Amino acid sequence: MYQLGVVRRNIQRADPAAVAKLSAFGTATVHEAMGRVGLMRPHMRPIYAGAHLCGPAVTVLLHPGDNWMMHVAAEQLQPGDVVVAACTAENTDGFFGDLLATSFRARGAVGLVIDGGVRDVKDLTAMGFPVWSKAISAKGTIKATLGSVNVRVICAGAEVNPGDVVIADDDGVVVVPAAQAAQVAEAAEAREANEAAKRAKLASGVLGLDMYDMRGPLEEAGLKYID
Amino acid sequence: MYQLGVVRRNIQRADPAAVAKLSAFGTATVHEAMGRVGLMRPHMRPIYAGAHLCGPAVTVLLHPGDNWMMHVAAEQLQPGDVVVAACTAENTDGFFGDLLATSFRARGAVGLVIDGGVRDVKDLTAMGFPVWSKAISAKGTIKATLGSVNVRVICAGAEVNPGDVVIADDDGVVVVPAAQAAQVAEAAEAREANEAAKRAKLASGVLGLDMYDMRGPLEEAGLKYID
Amino acid sequence: MYQLGVVRRNIQRADPAAVAKLSAFGTATVHEAMGRVGLMRPHMRPIYAGAHLCGPAVTVLLHPGDNWMMHVAAEQLQPGDVVVAACTAENTDGFFGDLLATSFRARGAVGLVIDGGVRDVKDLTAMGFPVWSKAISAKGTIKATLGSVNVRVICAGAEVNPGDVVIADDDGVVVVPAAQAAQVAEAAEAREANEAAKRAKLASGVLGLDMYDMRGPLEEAGLKYID
Amino acid sequence: MYQLGVVRRNIQRADPAAVAKLSAFGTATVHEAMGRVGLMRPHMRPIYAGAHLCGPAVTVLLHPGDNWMMHVAAEQLQPGDVVVAACTAENTDGFFGDLLATSFRARGAVGLVIDGGVRDVKDLTAMGFPVWSKAISAKGTIKATLGSVNVRVICAGAEVNPGDVVIADDDGVVVVPAAQAAQVAEAAEAREANEAAKRAKLASGVLGLDMYDMRGPLEEAGLKYID
Amino acid sequence: MYQLGVVRRNIQRADPAAVAKLSAFGTATVHEAMGRVGLMRPHMRPIYAGAHLCGPAVTVLLHPGDNWMMHVAAEQLQPGDVVVAACTAENTDGFFGDLLATSFRARGAVGLVIDGGVRDVKDLTAMGFPVWSKAISAKGTIKATLGSVNVRVICAGAEVNPGDVVIADDDGVVVVPAAQAAQVAEAAEAREANEAAKRAKLASGVLGLDMYDMRGPLEEAGLKYID
Amino acid sequence: MYQLGVVRRNIQRADPAAVAKLSAFGTATVHEAMGRVGLMRPHMRPIYAGAHLCGPAVTVLLHPGDNWMMHVAAEQLQPGDVVVAACTAENTDGFFGDLLATSFRARGAVGLVIDGGVRDVKDLTAMGFPVWSKAISAKGTIKATLGSVNVRVICAGAEVNPGDVVIADDDGVVVVPAAQAAQVAEAAEAREANEAAKRAKLASGVLGLDMYDMRGPLEEAGLKYID
Repeated sequence: MYQLGVVRRNIQRADPAAVAKLSAFGTATVHEAMGRVGLMRPHMRPIYAGAHLCGPAVTVLLHPGDNWMMHVAAEQLQPGDVVVAACTAENTDGFFGDLLATSFRARGAVGLVIDGGVRDVKDLTAMGFPVWSKAISAKGTIKATLGSVNVRVICAGAEVNPGDVVIADDDGVVVVPAAQAAQVAEAAEAREANEAAKRAKLASGVLGLDMYDMRGPLEEAGLKYID
Repeated sequence: MYQLGVVRRNIQRADPAAVAKLSAFGTATVHEAMGRVGLMRPHMRPIYAGAHLCGPAVTVLLHPGDNWMMHVAAEQLQPGDVVVAACTAENTDGFFGDLLATSFRARGAVGLVIDGGVRDVKDLTAMGFPVWSKAISAKGTIKATLGSVNVRVICAGAEVNPGDVVIADDDGVVVVPAAQAAQVAEAAEAREANEAAKRAKLASGVLGLDMYDMRGPLEEAGLKYID
Repeated sequence: MYQLGVVRRNIQRADPAAVAKLSAFGTATVHEAMGRVGLMRPHMRPIYAGAHLCGPAVTVLLHPGDNWMMHVAAEQLQPGDVVVAACTAENTDGFFGDLLATSFRARGAVGLVIDGGVRDVKDLTAMGFPVWSKAISAKGTIKATLGSVNVRVICAGAEVNPGDVVIADDDGVVVVPAAQAAQVAEAAEAREANEAAKRAKLASGVLGLDMYDMRGPLEEAGLKYID
Repeated sequence: MYQLGVVRRNIQRADPAAVAKLSAFGTATVHEAMGRVGLMRPHMRPIYAGAHLCGPAVTVLLHPGDNWMMHVAAEQLQPGDVVVAACTAENTDGFFGDLLATSFRARGAVGLVIDGGVRDVKDLTAMGFPVWSKAISAKGTIKATLGSVNVRVICAGAEVNPGDVVIADDDGVVVVPAAQAAQVAEAAEAREANEAAKRAKLASGVLGLDMYDMRGPLEEAGLKYID
Repeated sequence: MYQLGVVRRNIQRADPAAVAKLSAFGTATVHEAMGRVGLMRPHMRPIYAGAHLCGPAVTVLLHPGDNWMMHVAAEQLQPGDVVVAACTAENTDGFFGDLLATSFRARGAVGLVIDGGVRDVKDLTAMGFPVWSKAISAKGTIKATLGSVNVRVICAGAEVNPGDVVIADDDGVVVVPAAQAAQVAEAAEAREANEAAKRAKLASGVLGLDMYDMRGPLEEAGLKYID
Repeated sequence: MYQLGVVRRNIQRADPAAVAKLSAFGTATVHEAMGRVGLMRPHMRPIYAGAHLCGPAVTVLLHPGDNWMMHVAAEQLQPGDVVVAACTAENTDGFFGDLLATSFRARGAVGLVIDGGVRDVKDLTAMGFPVWSKAISAKGTIKATLGSVNVRVICAGAEVNPGDVVIADDDGVVVVPAAQAAQVAEAAEAREANEAAKRAKLASGVLGLDMYDMRGPLEEAGLKYID
């Protein structure tokens, strides 16, 4: 449940070794490795193609049209952190731009995931500061109402606890609970190894129907071939 | 009407000569040449700019969250084919990724049009395997329910019969019935020739008002010029 | 209020000096300089990244599926103008393509803002003719019903009067009333100067909390730090 | 594929006995009886609760903002017919109101299904003339461009051929091909009988888990009960 | 253009006689009588069926998540007024509920049109206080930022000046400029009279094709009847 | 974080006395009493007007197009429970209809909240079994993939733990954590008492401006009255 007006200073970030391992994988692989959970809704899109990030979450809870808490969050950032910003209502205002990005980067943050709007995307792209958002909007925000920093938030349909690992790329954003990070990294590794072999087979012309032994189950399910 | 649990093996692909001719044109030209019919809804977007394809359709009917039939479709592909995947419900899951793309390409397919989600878009872009979809999502799918391959489908509001010619580019996706392919290609050719002359005139400063003789009809319709 | 069937020939374009000054700024800065008004809704997106324009508006009022008035508008264009097209209903048809762009450019127009669809985006990108639209669609339009040219329009939620200054970039589209152009340009200049200093401070690690003196107000508002 | 500018006068309406039988069932039952195909997208909503209709389709193909073909369709109506109107583009204009409803009713039509907008909904409700639409809008339409009557159309994602049976109620709209009407009616009957028995069992407290023998398959699939 | 932080006390309300006349008509008729302009987007829906209102507008400009100005507006209300509330960004929060409705009614207001959210809809329905909104949401709002009262606003795509006549019913919301109110009322009257005769003819079985003399124009346009 | 393939049998339902107290309030009041948190997104709408429910949650996690877990959930229901169903992807299929409602009611459940589709709404309305959903659709679902019952879920943007109190009415759906139920009930009571007095004052013509002492803060914020 959301808490308002609170900043947690000491959060338990996921084990750096697990974060490092996870950073080698894309969201699709991690999502599968987690058992297909933890994915944000597909309206979350990167502001430029090819962006990728992986790091522990510092969470922010915003009100519509108000980015006061982003400034409060800046102080809580450590090198490698990813800011994850949720909002108490649907809102596309530009909560974040190049000034905040400059501040976040100075603190070591590697990117932002926000279920709201972002602006100055040309500057952010030039800076190489990646943002996943639901909208791009030049509309600025006020600083009037308390939200929170480092509380559990629901962002684009996914639960994010401070310190959880956030992985984002062209396919979207996935969240790995801090406690599961090492285990998911291993599962992802296994999966990836597995995929290389499959890719080679498929490239040589072997069909998935045969590689995955699907012909029997399809026949059982009643599939009919006609001419 | 949709049929479930059926794979048609022998389909009548559009005449290759007509397909080759059509491949010279963009969707806007082809859509006009067809009398402004056959266009998919504009939510169908390419995963990278500049993508273009033209080829006969192998159709797939999917269920939400289930890509079993994509594997069945792979076996039916011939060089030059375009896979067109419809879904029985609105769904943004990632039905297709780099493994299936590897398989489809090994069979000769030149691209995918899917009224659903796609993933691994960075890899697909690197491979140069074009996809038009309504969403991008890391979310994987199961293999549990029979759909069909090579039945008539409604994809993004357009009817597609197996063998129809599918043309897709930055402006969207258009479908030409196999039987009309040659005639539409000719109409497109005529139109294009026509356009070059118009473009030159307009570039020289001639107004469409004069080139299309619109001043009379506008006056008749009651247009008033004021200062 | 909309007027139909009218073309105003003599419009008062914003002062060219003010337009030139405004052209140095992005939409986020101008929007702030205006007191956070005049912004179009964020569904207005450029057809290619990095596009930017600034110029006086020639307005067009269209009916769904009908681009007749675009041709009427072409005659009213002067070098440096931006065409702003509104529609009497939500519609995503491709009202504009490379032929009209050729004509608009021949008349000196620098770009288009349309609350509707556009097509030939590959050609428009190659031409470097920027368009902000709510959709991309190959679907063409007819020429049957009178709209208007150079009347006040509501475009994507913003009021645009002929001659107003339109600024558009990757963050969206903002409209500055002609009479306020000089004053807004000055405010933007002041703001920008101000921002450079702030950016340097933030880059050096100073927090917005301190730079903007937020700690007191946050405490007063009741913000609690916990461990 | 759409045809423009055509009115087919002699269409083969589904067998009246089958239509009568089908009229006893709701859309959910009919959709299941058809093997879960033929359903329109869920954006199609009735203008008042409790509406229900069943009858053979007279189809109309409209252009955005233009209802000329609705008048052409009126002449083709026979008692018991349902008008099904598709549009060549997404459009929410009010193509239909109480005057057309008066005309359609005078010809014997029992309702309208339109992938567009409708107006005069208070009058239509008072008349008891049911309409399923994607929008309600006071905006009127022009009469300028030819569409078609009694051609195959795609309406809200479903294919409708003239004479097909259209069933609509609070749950949506389903289309039964004329040739399958009798067979689907029988399947619906069987299903309904079946449902009454199930409903009684469930009402008495028997669980679906037991009634459908799901416990074994769930265990096999790996379901775990924890305390 | 929006002005912020301003309350205009003396506004010119439309002539009461014209308002009274207009109150006899629905939005579809008034919209036609105005030449098909002045309509809000169709996402504006009444909170209960059968609601109808007509009165001069008192306008409010809100910020997302902030209803402070609604209280400021209350003081400016006179008997018969309609409150029209626009928002500087897309927002669905519940800006208005039964307390504000009680206050507005005590001042004589007859209803609310808001391009945002509303709550307490059960109470509002019981009170018979009609509201047209784009959303229903229990989410409350703060009182922190100045908007304006009685400035020109863009509400759901329509321009509204203080004192303009707002007519709303089940088909949507239309705005008549104060200066045109009498003339539009007359045009509506003429139109309505005209419609009664048409309705009778159509009810008797006369076709629109004949009543509107459409057969000639349709033939000219190339319509083909086939069997 | 979601868990798949798990059914928790023993959940801690919120204190019945607190549930009973909370059942006297609407969602707007409860949402305020909680400090404006815990609300689902406003796309969750009741299938009939006037519906209201309050009870402890039994949660269900579904896959798109698959309602298997609804049957598993039925066994876990106790009198007074509310079923809250989330889905791993956006999906509008009809996961629930009159048969499941009969079963749920036989087990004592008082309603359903589902971030997906529902069908048989006419029957559900006749039964007085309230459902809040994001869509209505006749489309049925399969029973093939394991989800979970009584795990923490994210439903329409709100976190729901098994046993939490769910309150739903015409304004939406709000969730009260079980541990806070008593305290929120008290806060709601205080608030409601408070509101009655305010309502009387406002009804007598007192302005919110005076009742809430807003004139000072508005002047300080810079509000200007002009004539």
